[in-house]
Amino acid sequence: MNGTRMLADLDELATYGVDPGGGLSRLGFTAEEDSARRFLREAAGRAGLGSTVDQAGNLFLHPGKALPDDPVVLMGSHVDTVRRGGRFDGAYGVVAALEVLRTLTEHDLPTRHAPVVVAFANEEGARFPCPFWGSLAVTGQLDAAASTVDRAGHSIREPLARAGGDLDAIGDAVWPPGAVGAYLELHIEQGPVLESRGVPIGVVTGIVGRAIVEFDVRGRQNHAGTTPMDQRRDALVAAAKLVLRIEALSAERNLCAVSTVGELGVEPGQANVVPGRARLTAEIRDLDAARLEVAEAVLREEAARIARETGVGIECVTTMRSAPVRTAPPLRAAIEAAAADLALPAMAMPSGAGHDAQLIAAVAPVGMIFVPSRGGISHAPEEYTAPTHLVAGANVLLHAALRA
Amino acid sequence: MNGTRMLADLDELATYGVDPGGGLSRLGFTAEEDSARRFLREAAGRAGLGSTVDQAGNLFLHPGKALPDDPVVLMGSHVDTVRRGGRFDGAYGVVAALEVLRTLTEHDLPTRHAPVVVAFANEEGARFPCPFWGSLAVTGQLDAAASTVDRAGHSIREPLARAGGDLDAIGDAVWPPGAVGAYLELHIEQGPVLESRGVPIGVVTGIVGRAIVEFDVRGRQNHAGTTPMDQRRDALVAAAKLVLRIEALSAERNLCAVSTVGELGVEPGQANVVPGRARLTAEIRDLDAARLEVAEAVLREEAARIARETGVGIECVTTMRSAPVRTAPPLRAAIEAAAADLALPAMAMPSGAGHDAQLIAAVAPVGMIFVPSRGGISHAPEEYTAPTHLVAGANVLLHAALRA
Repeated sequence: MNGTRMLADLDELATYGVDPGGGLSRLGFTAEEDSARRFLREAAGRAGLGSTVDQAGNLFLHPGKALPDDPVVLMGSHVDTVRRGGRFDGAYGVVAALEVLRTLTEHDLPTRHAPVVVAFANEEGARFPCPFWGSLAVTGQLDAAASTVDRAGHSIREPLARAGGDLDAIGDAVWPPGAVGAYLELHIEQGPVLESRGVPIGVVTGIVGRAIVEFDVRGRQNHAGTTPMDQRRDALVAAAKLVLRIEALSAERNLCAVSTVGELGVEPGQANVVPGRARLTAEIRDLDAARLEVAEAVLREEAARIARETGVGIECVTTMRSAPVRTAPPLRAAIEAAAADLALPAMAMPSGAGHDAQLIAAVAPVGMIFVPSRGGISHAPEEYTAPTHLVAGANVLLHAALRA
Repeated sequence: MNGTRMLADLDELATYGVDPGGGLSRLGFTAEEDSARRFLREAAGRAGLGSTVDQAGNLFLHPGKALPDDPVVLMGSHVDTVRRGGRFDGAYGVVAALEVLRTLTEHDLPTRHAPVVVAFANEEGARFPCPFWGSLAVTGQLDAAASTVDRAGHSIREPLARAGGDLDAIGDAVWPPGAVGAYLELHIEQGPVLESRGVPIGVVTGIVGRAIVEFDVRGRQNHAGTTPMDQRRDALVAAAKLVLRIEALSAERNLCAVSTVGELGVEPGQANVVPGRARLTAEIRDLDAARLEVAEAVLREEAARIARETGVGIECVTTMRSAPVRTAPPLRAAIEAAAADLALPAMAMPSGAGHDAQLIAAVAPVGMIFVPSRGGISHAPEEYTAPTHLVAGANVLLHAALRA
């Protein structure tokens, strides 16, 4: 494998979508992403590889002129970014997969299934608010009627056509059963675990499931000077109690892997007015569906208890729920063996973030490889992974593909 | 005293500034308030009284053509409202004072000082952001260079001139020493205490002092899925702890009368991101300056403790501090005696809200009378005080003026 060539590709990819404010803004279905995809197709062409774009805008790089009809070993990720994101999230997995494909074809190395690279369309959903657009489409899970308009009101139709897709024929993007024999996704961890343990390779056991519960706390808006403390129904005080109990759900009670309140709003929001209303979100994640279910139920009980204790009303609505997904044990074993071949320390770990692999798992065995993220930082210009780790991860991908 | 006439005046006053969205929007120095003031001058004229507007736009109603040179007993409040406010806050005190003045003159009742009614300008500061504009001006405490532009960028100059004032001569509004022998302000309580105790008259002991402390909590923004709980510095979790300790300051520890967090903002404010920053305000009030000082110091200690415990940074800035003000014991005694004369139950109580009286206290003895507010609601269309309470309060004002 040519690590230098891969790093050069990654450097070049990082020139598409440079944001004057810092980082990369290479949103899905924009001119910036189109340029990045053009670069990938040209690089594939220079290596004698063909490329295909499906109706959903997913880009495939493959030996020969057309995608093979037989089952493939698919490797890749995505090249779109969030606004002011980093240069490794997604892009690394695609560039490494391209390097693996070049290596396999140059050296005529045998794999059980024909190797193919994929750059899934619109994984982040930063412009058109449908994250995992491409992987939803190939697995028949995309509701193409929804989320096809950006914030400015522009339809996805034209940008999708420019990328090579076709909104009217998007149903044809669905893979026939058995089309993918194995899917391997190499990705930066986007968390601090590998770095803090000093381990270069993560063997992903699964992608956590997730629930978002929105709470609407209704108290009584009052004058902060004239309302005695014992006559208040302060929505923010109740919300603050809820924030701490949501944190305790994972931090103290270990009912789920992580639990977060990321949003909290107060009404009317004036220093001299007792808040009448507060709204907040709880987000919980775990690799075990049963644990996630229990955690969500406990969350609702906690909210009801706080409502009773403080005299406010609390309504909860679960606005999002995704099931945990397990990686395929044979692919996990292949990745472990690959790391062992290369004498690279590896550890099993769940993925706390979502990836295309979690959708693909519905129709094919999936495996995921993580490399360390400095400071655990991602979705930010400061996102960084050391070149040695990048090359090590790509080597593990190569060896895993040979064993898949 | 003619209760029916006073209630009719109050009804008429409530026709100026009706907001289509509900309640009254009769902001200081607007056409709506100009109309209300014109109505007051005309009502005074019909009763054979004169009226004067000073350079700050304060409106005085008085026997004879000009304000007397000798010390006066001044009675009143303000007629401007907040946006979508109620019909009693301020307006009641002015209308009742007018009725008292009419009664005194019609019946030629003797008072120690000549009685004068005042409607102070821009008490709420809802358009031009300088609350207590008028009472600050007459007591020489107004910085006329500041806060004289509304949100749309319009200067106060023209609106002030239309109201009869003069920005260039505003220093001439300052009262000479001894001009006011006593100031009596009748007002709705704007809190729930009188109603919940079933007492019709509040004898105000003073107006609480106040401090607003702004906290800036700096944690570390992280991915909510990939950052383990023990590696987080969640700004919102720290802020939630602070909210509960601020509440406990008064509710549990009785270090001040009331303590409130009315504003809280989270950054970046996304369900799937661990908050990196939270900003909140603490507002504390008490009638005792020493207690207020201690409470503020404890608040800062609590913030420092939470910062140590959670690993976030917390900066605090006190952005506002006002000293408590005591009403004059002789006027308090006069109000108590007036209530007793009328066989009206009365109770001593602090004012948790600010009033013109607290500024006037710097240059004259002040007394304040409260009547019950239904549900403690004020600054809202639902603001309500029963007619019997309105008439009772005005009678107490009349009898207190006779004793002042």
